[in-house]
Amino acid sequence: MDSRNIRLAVIPGDGIGTEVVAEGLKVLEAVGTKLEPTHYDLGAARYHRTGETLPDAVLEELRGYDAILLGAVGDPSVPPGVLERDLLLRLRFAFDHYVNLRPVKLFPGVPTPLAGSSADDIDMIVVREGTEGLYAGTGGVMRRGTPHEIATQESLNTAHGVERVVRYAFEKARSRPRKKLTLVHKTNVLTYAGDLWQRTVDRVAGEYPEVTTDYTHIDAASMFFVSRPERFDVVVTDNLFGDIITDLGAAIAGGIGLAASGNINPERTAPSMFEPVHGSAPDIAGQGKADPTATILSVAMLLDHLGLHAEAARVEQAVAADIAERRSGRSTHEIGDDITARVSG
Amino acid sequence: MDSRNIRLAVIPGDGIGTEVVAEGLKVLEAVGTKLEPTHYDLGAARYHRTGETLPDAVLEELRGYDAILLGAVGDPSVPPGVLERDLLLRLRFAFDHYVNLRPVKLFPGVPTPLAGSSADDIDMIVVREGTEGLYAGTGGVMRRGTPHEIATQESLNTAHGVERVVRYAFEKARSRPRKKLTLVHKTNVLTYAGDLWQRTVDRVAGEYPEVTTDYTHIDAASMFFVSRPERFDVVVTDNLFGDIITDLGAAIAGGIGLAASGNINPERTAPSMFEPVHGSAPDIAGQGKADPTATILSVAMLLDHLGLHAEAARVEQAVAADIAERRSGRSTHEIGDDITARVSG
Ligand SMILES: CC(C)[C@H](C(=O)O)[C@@H](O)C(=O)O
Ligand SMILES: CC(C)[C@H](C(=O)O)[C@@H](O)C(=O)O
Repeated sequence: MDSRNIRLAVIPGDGIGTEVVAEGLKVLEAVGTKLEPTHYDLGAARYHRTGETLPDAVLEELRGYDAILLGAVGDPSVPPGVLERDLLLRLRFAFDHYVNLRPVKLFPGVPTPLAGSSADDIDMIVVREGTEGLYAGTGGVMRRGTPHEIATQESLNTAHGVERVVRYAFEKARSRPRKKLTLVHKTNVLTYAGDLWQRTVDRVAGEYPEVTTDYTHIDAASMFFVSRPERFDVVVTDNLFGDIITDLGAAIAGGIGLAASGNINPERTAPSMFEPVHGSAPDIAGQGKADPTATILSVAMLLDHLGLHAEAARVEQAVAADIAERRSGRSTHEIGDDITARVSG
Repeated sequence: MDSRNIRLAVIPGDGIGTEVVAEGLKVLEAVGTKLEPTHYDLGAARYHRTGETLPDAVLEELRGYDAILLGAVGDPSVPPGVLERDLLLRLRFAFDHYVNLRPVKLFPGVPTPLAGSSADDIDMIVVREGTEGLYAGTGGVMRRGTPHEIATQESLNTAHGVERVVRYAFEKARSRPRKKLTLVHKTNVLTYAGDLWQRTVDRVAGEYPEVTTDYTHIDAASMFFVSRPERFDVVVTDNLFGDIITDLGAAIAGGIGLAASGNINPERTAPSMFEPVHGSAPDIAGQGKADPTATILSVAMLLDHLGLHAEAARVEQAVAADIAERRSGRSTHEIGDDITARVSG
C-alpha cells in the first residue's frame, strides 16, 4: 500500500466549517496524497432533520479511517452543548484522543497584538488533555428553576489519564531545542486534582533528566502568555485550562484564523482527528470571509501524524510563505487557492 | 461617630504582602481617616510557629471590624492550598464575600502590552463570584499514589449564589455609561452550571431593560481580552473563570502591580476585604521591589465601600497622577511616599 493513500473521513460540520474544510482538502490533494475522502453530514442540519447527532453505526464506521478532518461544530439553533457534547466530545472520548495538540507559534510577518513580542518569543506547544477533567460531563441539577436549585459539575482525573498525557508532553519537550516543560494548573485551589498532576509530573520527570520542568498557576499563566510568552516551550495542562489557554495562545499568535489542532490517539487504536481551534462562527458563515489557514495547518498536522513528514513540511512552508506576503481582503477560496498553488508549485 | 473613623483589621500575610500593606496604610492615614488598625500575623510564619492558619477565635474577632486590608497569602514552604484554602478562601467564605470586584482599567500613561489598544479601550469591571463553584473545595482522592488513583473536584453552583452576584452585576452595569453586561462561562461543556448561570442572567435581565446583555465562552473571552478588549464593560462570571480572566485583565491593563480587588459582602453582614490581585511573590520579597500601587488602589475601593467617596476619589486621582509621571526604578517605599504626598498635598 502506498502510504500516501489516505482513507479520510471528513466532517465539515456547521457554519464556516464547510467552507474551510473544502480548502483543506484542496491542499491535501495538491500535496500529492491519494485521497479517498468520505463526507459525513454530521452537525446542526442533520440534527434538525433526524434528531441524530452521532449514531452508533456512524461512530463505528468512522473508526475504520486513517484520520478525520473536522471543520467546526455548533449552531445557535441547537441548545448549547448538544452538538459539542454528543458529537465533538463524543468523538474525542470514543477514539481516546487524550492528546489535544495545539501549537502556539507566531509566523514571521504575522502581526501579534503584543507590542513587545516577535516571532522568536512565541513558539510553544500546548499539550492539552482531551478525555478527562470537567469535560467528563458528570454532574447534575436538582430543583431546577426554583430558588433552591443546585447545579454541579465534576472534574474527573485519573492516574492513567494524567500519566499518559504527561509522558507525551515530556517526549515532545525532549524533542525540542529548549527542552522545557511547564505544568499549568491551579494546585492551590484544586488540591486533589492538582496534587495528582503535580506528583505525576514530578515522578515522570525522573525519567527525563534532560527536560527542565516548572509549574505555573493557570491565572498567572494567562498573564504570562501576554506579558512574557517566551517563558513557555511545552505546556501540559488539563482539558479546561487547555481550552482557555489555547484560545489565548491563538490571540497572541496572530488570531484564531491561524490556530491548528490535532486530537491525537498516540497508540493509534483509533483515528486521530484534526480541526481548526476556531468554532463555526455562524455570524460570518456562507460569506467566504473565513480564513482557512487554521484548517490547512491542521492538515499539515494530519500529514505529520500519518508519517508523511515531507508533505507536512511542504504545507507548513506554503502557509508560512503565504502569510509572509499576506494580502488582506482575500476570500476563503482565494487564500485556499494561493496556498494550494504554492504546495503544487 | 465620625464616619472617617475606620476600625481596620490588617493582614499583611506573606512575602511582599507586608511591604505593600505598609504603603497602603500610609495612604489611608494621609487621606484623612482616623485609622484604628489592628495587625494580625496570619500567614506562613504563624503556620510554622503554631500550626494554625486561622483560629476560630480570630475569625470571630475579625468579624467585628469595619473592613479588612490583606496583603498576600502563600509561601513555597507551606504545601499548596493550605494557606490559600484555610486562610484566604476561609475568610471569603465565612464573611460571604460573594462579590469579588476587580476593575480592569488602563490608566492613561501606562503602557499596555496590547499594540492596538489605548486607555479608552480597556475600562471594564469584572464581577467574579467569590463563594461557590470549584472553590467550594469538595472532591476527593481514592487509591492515591497508585496507578488506579482517581482525583475529583466539584463545582457547586446554587440559585441563591448565582442570583445575588448576577443582580450585583446588573446594578453595576446600570450605573455605568455603556450599561453592558457580559456573562462569561462555558455553557456548551459545563451544561448544568452554565444553564443555571444563563437562565439567571436571562431572568434578571427582565428587570433591567436599560442594560444590554450578551454571552461569551471563557475561551473566546480570553481571546477577546487581547484582541478586542473594548467589547467588555461589566463582566459577570464564576469563581474560577473570574480568577483566570482577572489576571489576564491585569496583564492587558499594565500589569499585576496595578490590579486592585475587593471581596465584598454587599449586605454588610460581615466586613469586606480588600487586597491586591497579585500574590506574595516570594522571589522578590524583602527587596523593596514590589509595586504597592495595587494595594493603594484596593485602599481606594475600601474607602468607597465605607462611603468615603471623596477620599476614595482623592486616592485614585493621586495614583493616576503618579502613574502618568511614572519614573522607573523607584522602591516600594518611594512609590508609597510619592502617592502619599499627592494625597496629603
Ligand atoms: C466546542 C467546544 C466543546 C471545544 C472545547 O471546549 O474543547 C472548543 O472550544 C475547542 O477548544 O475545541
Ligand atoms: C491565592 C488564590 C487562592 C487566589 C484565588 O484563586 O482566588 C488568587 O489567585 C486570587 O485571584 O485572589
